[in-house]
Amino acid sequence: MKIKATISYDGTSFCGWQKQPGKRSVQKEIENALLVLFDQKIEVNASGRTDAGVHALGQVISFDAPDQVSPNNLYRNLNAHLPEDIRVLKTEKADDDFDARFSAKTKTYVYKFYLSRYEHPLKRGREWRINDNINVDLMIKNLPCLVGEHDFSSFVSKKSGKTNFVRKVTSAKINKISDFEYELEISANGFLYNMVRIIMGTLVDIGAGRGGVSKMQEILEAKNRARAGKTAPPYALYLKSVVY
Amino acid sequence: MKIKATISYDGTSFCGWQKQPGKRSVQKEIENALLVLFDQKIEVNASGRTDAGVHALGQVISFDAPDQVSPNNLYRNLNAHLPEDIRVLKTEKADDDFDARFSAKTKTYVYKFYLSRYEHPLKRGREWRINDNINVDLMIKNLPCLVGEHDFSSFVSKKSGKTNFVRKVTSAKINKISDFEYELEISANGFLYNMVRIIMGTLVDIGAGRGGVSKMQEILEAKNRARAGKTAPPYALYLKSVVY
Repeated sequence: MKIKATISYDGTSFCGWQKQPGKRSVQKEIENALLVLFDQKIEVNASGRTDAGVHALGQVISFDAPDQVSPNNLYRNLNAHLPEDIRVLKTEKADDDFDARFSAKTKTYVYKFYLSRYEHPLKRGREWRINDNINVDLMIKNLPCLVGEHDFSSFVSKKSGKTNFVRKVTSAKINKISDFEYELEISANGFLYNMVRIIMGTLVDIGAGRGGVSKMQEILEAKNRARAGKTAPPYALYLKSVVY
Repeated sequence: MKIKATISYDGTSFCGWQKQPGKRSVQKEIENALLVLFDQKIEVNASGRTDAGVHALGQVISFDAPDQVSPNNLYRNLNAHLPEDIRVLKTEKADDDFDARFSAKTKTYVYKFYLSRYEHPLKRGREWRINDNINVDLMIKNLPCLVGEHDFSSFVSKKSGKTNFVRKVTSAKINKISDFEYELEISANGFLYNMVRIIMGTLVDIGAGRGGVSKMQEILEAKNRARAGKTAPPYALYLKSVVY
């Protein structure tokens, strides 16, 4: 039986979603739990890989479970065999041809940041601190140009093995969370390696005064990673949800 | 020069605010930083003690600094000598007779909780998980009776050395943060040992069906700790602010 599961994890102690020899990955932990539960090796697919340190609020995975399982209760059994930093929020029966990666239509990431002269003790490892002299309005004005189908070569890590850099961004906005807290929220049909983190790093450069209202557009059109900003740190990035 | 400082800390790794031999306390860390900075022993007072594991968003402290300090910039120098889990948010000159503890008029605590069948990985050590079959409306209806000047003997740890249990609560409410996240917010002229955590534990009992709309009132009037609920865990309690 094909199972679709929604999971959340704290990425702090993982090398990322994907299995890597000798390292602690989310995929490996879930495959271990399935092995204990069903006494057989079951391969698990995710909507996409998350990097080391990146969190998930609503990552979606798929796998084949023995036909006798009760799909809606499976999440309890899985949680009993998972470490505290991974939780299965929901399990359900899916169509036989469902694949968490290839069936995904839209994924949404949020990048959390706050404006302050000092790191807040209770935000460590969860939100990125930005100096409070930044111009958030200017950051917001630079977002609309990202929406649409574009070649995002300027916003991909050089380590990416990909050759096709065209993705369709369906939404890009900054949500105000409190007086000094914000989140960048981006939805797309797919994301390149480090794409959200490079966009975030570039936005902060722009907000700090390096570029005007059309700076992001210029960088996008340049199709050159060297024109964009630094890669923002992983710990403030969250895979929020996946739509199928 | 008398200094008033506003500080935030992650209580996870502390035995609480107050110095205890051989243990890591917030007070000790701040006094150490002052010793390094001014090469003299300076005693620090806080608006109130926070217990082991309890966090502070806006704790207020007071101390005497050498007269040549620049009060509004002192926070930077202090932060340079403090561990990451404590940050001084603000320093300012205060009247000579200012005392963080005795001058405090109102303190506000928040207790964060969320309704879920499983612990969320990203809320561990920050918010208390409550089963999602709880009646939050019933909890809210039980709050108004706490407001006013009352003997809170039912809501104090037996370990408290106090003999006067009368406190004046000026506000008690539950704020909805998201679909499934809430915070209990209580303001008072003072709090007894474990008072907010015992009120929170009692509220959850009531919400779970043990008592109706006047249960809290009955427990308050009983002036008997045994009638109230369990002490809720410390990691979801935050000293939010202090008014002078």
